[in-house]
Amino acid sequence: MDGLTMDDYQLTITAAVNRSERFHPQRQIVSRRPDRSLDRTTYGEVAGRSRRLAGALGGLGVGSGDRVATLLWNQPEHLEVYFAVPAMGSVVHTLNPRLHPDELSYIVNHAGDRVLILDETLLPVFDSIRGARDFENVIVVTHSEPAPEGTLSYEDLVSSGEAVEWPDLDERQAAAMCYTSGTTGRPKGVTYSHRSAILHCLGAALPDGLGISRRDVMLPVVPMFHANAWGIPYAAALTGAAIVYPGPHLDAESILDLLASERVTMTAGVPTVWMAILAALDAEPDRWDLSALRTMVVGGAAVPQSMIEGFDRHGLSVLQAWGMTETSPLGTVCHPSPDLGDGTPEQYGYRARQGIAVPLVEIRARNEEGEVPWDDQTMGELEVRGPWVAAGYHGGEGTEKFTADGWFQTGDVVTIDPHGCIKIWDRSKDLVKSGGEWISSVDLENLLMAHPAVAEAAVIAIPDERWGERPLGVIALNEGRSATPDELREHLSRDFAKWQLPERFEFVEAIPRTATGKWKKIDLRARFVNGSE
Amino acid sequence: MDGLTMDDYQLTITAAVNRSERFHPQRQIVSRRPDRSLDRTTYGEVAGRSRRLAGALGGLGVGSGDRVATLLWNQPEHLEVYFAVPAMGSVVHTLNPRLHPDELSYIVNHAGDRVLILDETLLPVFDSIRGARDFENVIVVTHSEPAPEGTLSYEDLVSSGEAVEWPDLDERQAAAMCYTSGTTGRPKGVTYSHRSAILHCLGAALPDGLGISRRDVMLPVVPMFHANAWGIPYAAALTGAAIVYPGPHLDAESILDLLASERVTMTAGVPTVWMAILAALDAEPDRWDLSALRTMVVGGAAVPQSMIEGFDRHGLSVLQAWGMTETSPLGTVCHPSPDLGDGTPEQYGYRARQGIAVPLVEIRARNEEGEVPWDDQTMGELEVRGPWVAAGYHGGEGTEKFTADGWFQTGDVVTIDPHGCIKIWDRSKDLVKSGGEWISSVDLENLLMAHPAVAEAAVIAIPDERWGERPLGVIALNEGRSATPDELREHLSRDFAKWQLPERFEFVEAIPRTATGKWKKIDLRARFVNGSE
Repeated sequence: MDGLTMDDYQLTITAAVNRSERFHPQRQIVSRRPDRSLDRTTYGEVAGRSRRLAGALGGLGVGSGDRVATLLWNQPEHLEVYFAVPAMGSVVHTLNPRLHPDELSYIVNHAGDRVLILDETLLPVFDSIRGARDFENVIVVTHSEPAPEGTLSYEDLVSSGEAVEWPDLDERQAAAMCYTSGTTGRPKGVTYSHRSAILHCLGAALPDGLGISRRDVMLPVVPMFHANAWGIPYAAALTGAAIVYPGPHLDAESILDLLASERVTMTAGVPTVWMAILAALDAEPDRWDLSALRTMVVGGAAVPQSMIEGFDRHGLSVLQAWGMTETSPLGTVCHPSPDLGDGTPEQYGYRARQGIAVPLVEIRARNEEGEVPWDDQTMGELEVRGPWVAAGYHGGEGTEKFTADGWFQTGDVVTIDPHGCIKIWDRSKDLVKSGGEWISSVDLENLLMAHPAVAEAAVIAIPDERWGERPLGVIALNEGRSATPDELREHLSRDFAKWQLPERFEFVEAIPRTATGKWKKIDLRARFVNGSE
Repeated sequence: MDGLTMDDYQLTITAAVNRSERFHPQRQIVSRRPDRSLDRTTYGEVAGRSRRLAGALGGLGVGSGDRVATLLWNQPEHLEVYFAVPAMGSVVHTLNPRLHPDELSYIVNHAGDRVLILDETLLPVFDSIRGARDFENVIVVTHSEPAPEGTLSYEDLVSSGEAVEWPDLDERQAAAMCYTSGTTGRPKGVTYSHRSAILHCLGAALPDGLGISRRDVMLPVVPMFHANAWGIPYAAALTGAAIVYPGPHLDAESILDLLASERVTMTAGVPTVWMAILAALDAEPDRWDLSALRTMVVGGAAVPQSMIEGFDRHGLSVLQAWGMTETSPLGTVCHPSPDLGDGTPEQYGYRARQGIAVPLVEIRARNEEGEVPWDDQTMGELEVRGPWVAAGYHGGEGTEKFTADGWFQTGDVVTIDPHGCIKIWDRSKDLVKSGGEWISSVDLENLLMAHPAVAEAAVIAIPDERWGERPLGVIALNEGRSATPDELREHLSRDFAKWQLPERFEFVEAIPRTATGKWKKIDLRARFVNGSE
């Protein structure tokens, strides 16, 4: 006896595209253009144009499984590509324009991208990799100038393309690709299937996920080239949430203007963006009406507790989420604990955790002694599996990141509380082991960043003859502010034992970042590990 | 290029069971026992016991794909069976004890049930079908007496059973069965797969579905033998919502006591239950503290607008949902329209609709002229498809209910508005066609039930020489109240044109119901169609 009286309905991105076109064709897609003007379109328009884009791409010879790369901002054309390419059976491959040209060149060749669609403002990035790969077609979204010679105009393609009827697809077909940012070794490619994309949507839209509904107006600050756009394009299309795209204008004032004027209910981005926004709000607390804003999803790096407290003072609720390119990306979300009072120090401490796995994501942590208990004490490396978690990389690389029984090893060192709420202590390679005890660089960084004089803080391990390793703090101060190492140690001693305090601090203009905004500790180690400069 | 860098994680009920055991073992399962006492257990206990139940059932020879029937109330043992039987690879088949013994006998044989698990209080039902099927084992959940001779004690089985490790299952395996209530012809069996059950959970838990989260306390009034228990057991297990089971005590006072004392946030049931509860609240508006109650999901039959208005007066929010056994059952949900003011007549009219299809459910309506436009005007029979919609019945019966292109024909006549919100006008066989125009029996019934003297109202079509058909109203009055046909017509003329008003009313003690609480119009037609008695 089998279960086949149920419809074998395939979980495909086409279902999300069709739903947006059928159920909420009038919902708005608003976007800020490079010239700062606001463009307004709808799901109906975007879905209709995506059918014509697919027709045009088909005419160029793009077929099933072919990779179409993008160098685009958060803009409606990017959404059209997110719709058209998977729904026609091809694979959308988002490129991060902030990567080094060598890395980009490696990635486009490794993925075998056949076509590149890019925004006019990113032509310099294309120029920097032009020699590295012979794209069959380069398609430019123009704003002011005609498309350069040798390239095609995106608008011409869409307006001349014949609208296709979407083909039936298998849910296990590839839909999208994204490369890890590669803090160690070469970037590795993750391929999302239609099935994983739709299941991830559902997980993200759950109340215990991010909670996305037809009533939402979503402003994704997180770039659509970052980790599958956090799944927002398809979750919004499936539920009917309106979208507000900031385009290339990611400064605090531009974002805050849009949040207020478009009555945004949900926004999402990495902590560094929110630091700047919090500073702008602190400077002018009454300038923006953010009364519609329900949730600010922050992920991509640990969220300092001071940021959560800071936004709370403005009546704004930060929701920390954790994930990776390999997890589509949503893995865990930290909703406030129902067991702790709102606004208490315990609740703030809780909310600074990474949270509880979204339904259908399984977690465990292991150390040298095996699987760690969920006792909120024992540290181990986080491992995950689930229907939107990678089981391998493109080309069969990186098999060492997956266990024999099929779990993905995240490289994050965590403790897990009895309810399954994780706290990330560090990347496994960033932990400081001093005298046999672990010190969390993340915790030191977060408390350092709560100091009023500190703009940015990174902590790395330096070798120490007596203790094995000791923490070193790298600090970028706020303009016009100062702090001495002693003052910083005094500040840290609020939460840390004396033996955990860094003996040494280095002051820098700015801490180097990876292309996705994380501290580039590899550079800091190269610079500071062999003693002071 | 395929999508297989993603984990081929199977969508199985085992994932929900495991999650409840791992992530929220302490969440409560409260239940009222036949003697009215309250029993408190937890997901951890239930999941642990379900492993032992599975061990014991395996010992009795229950194997993969075997059907295990239940005659149980909403009680924790039923949840244990809902966990154990699918997770061990077998199929749980819920029986409705209110069915006629002939129907029950037909169903248990048609499904080929091998084992029956029943509550002591339902032994008379078992006795009524005892001769019809030779179950290999009959297992009794006892409360006061020992298990009768020839049966096994459920508790003995669980305490002696060896806890199993759940086997790996294919998501397309059968997990559960439910038979339609069969208002026409023989009952037909629907088989739910693990995949459809989990996808249905996710759809039900979405904010645009019913919105179920870890913070909820759910009191399902709807029996667990009704249409897959509306998917609540697995949605609750997956999210970690606590459950409060009313057991066999479904009177208004018992339900209200539990809603108040257990701080229930969500409840779900058919309209007839809520009519009685509304009457109790109207009689004693201050007796129960229902401040935790966020959502009352009402489905299984059309919700009278007067009921929505009535609960609103008590600050309680009715959420109408529509579905069928064939749709797992959740098909559509009617959240208030964001375009209409709260508390306006337009909003109440909107909320009395059946709503918008849950993400991944596709709808269309067709009449003689083909697919109807979404113009809120044109009527057609609703057709649905999706990952938790049946594509056939057990045994290959009822193929006439499915279109050649794979949609399920619901038998409901609807209009669809431009946002995809459906309004059910009638069952296709209940519509009244008078002088070439349709009259909705459902609308007449709903407005009749808003009359203070009317307890129950059903409208059927009677043949008419001049007009083809005319509506006839069958009325059960509230105790001690009276209303004349003229008064009822006067009341109806608020919303209906003169030609739509029934000329004829019949007054009865109570309107006959099917086993799932719907009006049994087939009986009314037999009684009234050939003139007044």
